[in-house]
Amino acid sequence: MDESLNLDPLAELITNYNELNSSVIEELDEEPSPLDFLRFVSRNTPFVIRGGAADWKATRTWNAAFLREYLSNESVNVAVTPAGNADAPTLHTDGSLVFAKPWEEEQPFPEFLDYVIAQETGNLPERSEVRYAQTQNDNLRHEYSTLFWDCQQDIPFARIALDKEPDAINMWVGNSRSVTALHKDNYENIYVQIRGRKHFVLLPPVCHPCVNEQLLPPATYYARPPSPKGVELALDPNTEPVPFAVWDPDTPETNTTAYSHLANPIRVTLGPGDMLYLPCMWYHKVSQSCDEDGICVAVNYWYDMDFSGPLYPLTNFVRSVYSQVDRNRNEKGGGGSTGEQNKRIIRSGSTVCPFCSS
Amino acid sequence: MDESLNLDPLAELITNYNELNSSVIEELDEEPSPLDFLRFVSRNTPFVIRGGAADWKATRTWNAAFLREYLSNESVNVAVTPAGNADAPTLHTDGSLVFAKPWEEEQPFPEFLDYVIAQETGNLPERSEVRYAQTQNDNLRHEYSTLFWDCQQDIPFARIALDKEPDAINMWVGNSRSVTALHKDNYENIYVQIRGRKHFVLLPPVCHPCVNEQLLPPATYYARPPSPKGVELALDPNTEPVPFAVWDPDTPETNTTAYSHLANPIRVTLGPGDMLYLPCMWYHKVSQSCDEDGICVAVNYWYDMDFSGPLYPLTNFVRSVYSQVDRNRNEKGGGGSTGEQNKRIIRSGSTVCPFCSS
Repeated sequence: MDESLNLDPLAELITNYNELNSSVIEELDEEPSPLDFLRFVSRNTPFVIRGGAADWKATRTWNAAFLREYLSNESVNVAVTPAGNADAPTLHTDGSLVFAKPWEEEQPFPEFLDYVIAQETGNLPERSEVRYAQTQNDNLRHEYSTLFWDCQQDIPFARIALDKEPDAINMWVGNSRSVTALHKDNYENIYVQIRGRKHFVLLPPVCHPCVNEQLLPPATYYARPPSPKGVELALDPNTEPVPFAVWDPDTPETNTTAYSHLANPIRVTLGPGDMLYLPCMWYHKVSQSCDEDGICVAVNYWYDMDFSGPLYPLTNFVRSVYSQVDRNRNEKGGGGSTGEQNKRIIRSGSTVCPFCSS
Repeated sequence: MDESLNLDPLAELITNYNELNSSVIEELDEEPSPLDFLRFVSRNTPFVIRGGAADWKATRTWNAAFLREYLSNESVNVAVTPAGNADAPTLHTDGSLVFAKPWEEEQPFPEFLDYVIAQETGNLPERSEVRYAQTQNDNLRHEYSTLFWDCQQDIPFARIALDKEPDAINMWVGNSRSVTALHKDNYENIYVQIRGRKHFVLLPPVCHPCVNEQLLPPATYYARPPSPKGVELALDPNTEPVPFAVWDPDTPETNTTAYSHLANPIRVTLGPGDMLYLPCMWYHKVSQSCDEDGICVAVNYWYDMDFSGPLYPLTNFVRSVYSQVDRNRNEKGGGGSTGEQNKRIIRSGSTVCPFCSS
């Protein structure tokens, strides 16, 4: 207790959380009851159910040939980027960091799938654009609705526990070139792997000070009409900057804050039929590897989070305190949120304000 | 959002919480299911069940005559204070604020009960000492165990939801002279009113900055051998000061912090047979009024709280941030946590650190 008084409160928060919570995800071998599930929700703590969706028709029957045939006449929305970096912090040509949004277009599903597979199996030039079907607009109940009956209509333990229907059910189809950058959603998320594997890196909401959220100017790839350079990036006109994490737990020495080294990420890989409970407001970075067909397919169920209670305002509070710390440090010449020099604020004597070092 | 950037994060936290949560307690007219109960636990939100224990044998049969007869040969631990201020911030004779612990002694239950009633019904001198049977050591399963069978052995919806037995079950017997000062417990609490009424003032954990927690020297009333002045108070030798709230939401202009005026207390009165869910870490002040016999009787069930998840470390974080704010303000001559002058820190421009006003 005495020792903690000399700690920066933000460092103390992350350290306390790490002491009270495991950085190894809990693994279940069957679906939890609604009551068991709500205990995880109540603790805002993830878990994985190994084989929880192993008997879904989707898990048993979907493969590249089946999907190509079943969706032979469908068009799907495809996110196109040069490097699989849809919705990710990206260096612009002028050297600044921007929030890169994909070029989006409708493509016949068979054409899209063949492209994804050809790229994964090495049959496209190395610098070919990356395509990812990743709309998060309830696509499994709309553009992919013919496939929806091969999946559960909802997740009963979640529906009963949360007393609500899913707000959106999404399907994700891509290859190992696509990576979803570290971000968070205001949803309780049940993520179900169907084909291939997804590799999650997870951080709890208290790790906000670790992720180096920056205000990034939004930019969008424009690729059509065809550009000789492939997809190109342009700043969006007249838009507000987007707050987005720029620290990547897989390159932990880059783009750090004074707190990044305190993060204790949970890493979990989902195989076919595995289900992940990803609690609301958890940061997650997701990469993927493909099945023998050269595809990676997942579906997820988003349930609205509960904004009442203390968690949401407390999470905002962490963000506000960190913002003040960061802003004051910058104004006093600390020079941005990145780099070694910030580590000096972690410990401070009682006569120095740890929030502005004055 | 822009506006909030100019707000002190602590003020923003309390304001956000108030906007997202009602200050009127939810009233149920029957026991919740374990799942419903866990939803309240998950939101760390209190509720009251009107008449939830109306059919308990205790509620139907306990009165002064019954208790006197039933416990005629029992001794009970009694807390003795001059003004009903057991475990309360109290002005010492030297004018300093101390944490006053009661004189405790064993008394035959009939003698104790007769005293409580005589005082309540005006049959004792006005300055008589106040007696309260308020041990919180699982007394209903020990010193009052003969009465325990008139109460539920646990609260099934809580036991099932929390997947644990009660850690302690306590009985409280006193009169309207006793008041339990604003404090918090690390327990999930089911409070059941049997006779008389209890008046709760409740504040959520995020209101820590409002309650003006101070480090108070502990002191104990010593009353035996009989003192001509009645019970007297003496500082405990060789003890650490106790952190304790000194703001009283019933005298909201006194002992304030810069944040006290932001508190939105929930007020709820329990009548006989009412049950209250008091979530862990909620501040509560409890006063009482008596039934026609001149007594007030309640029992409560304490279930260990879950320290995993984000709530406990986040609540400690609020406390740490507030401590830094308070300490820095004092060091810069702000002059303590009490008074008008502190209100100036609530709003600050972007070039002033709201944590130390430098």
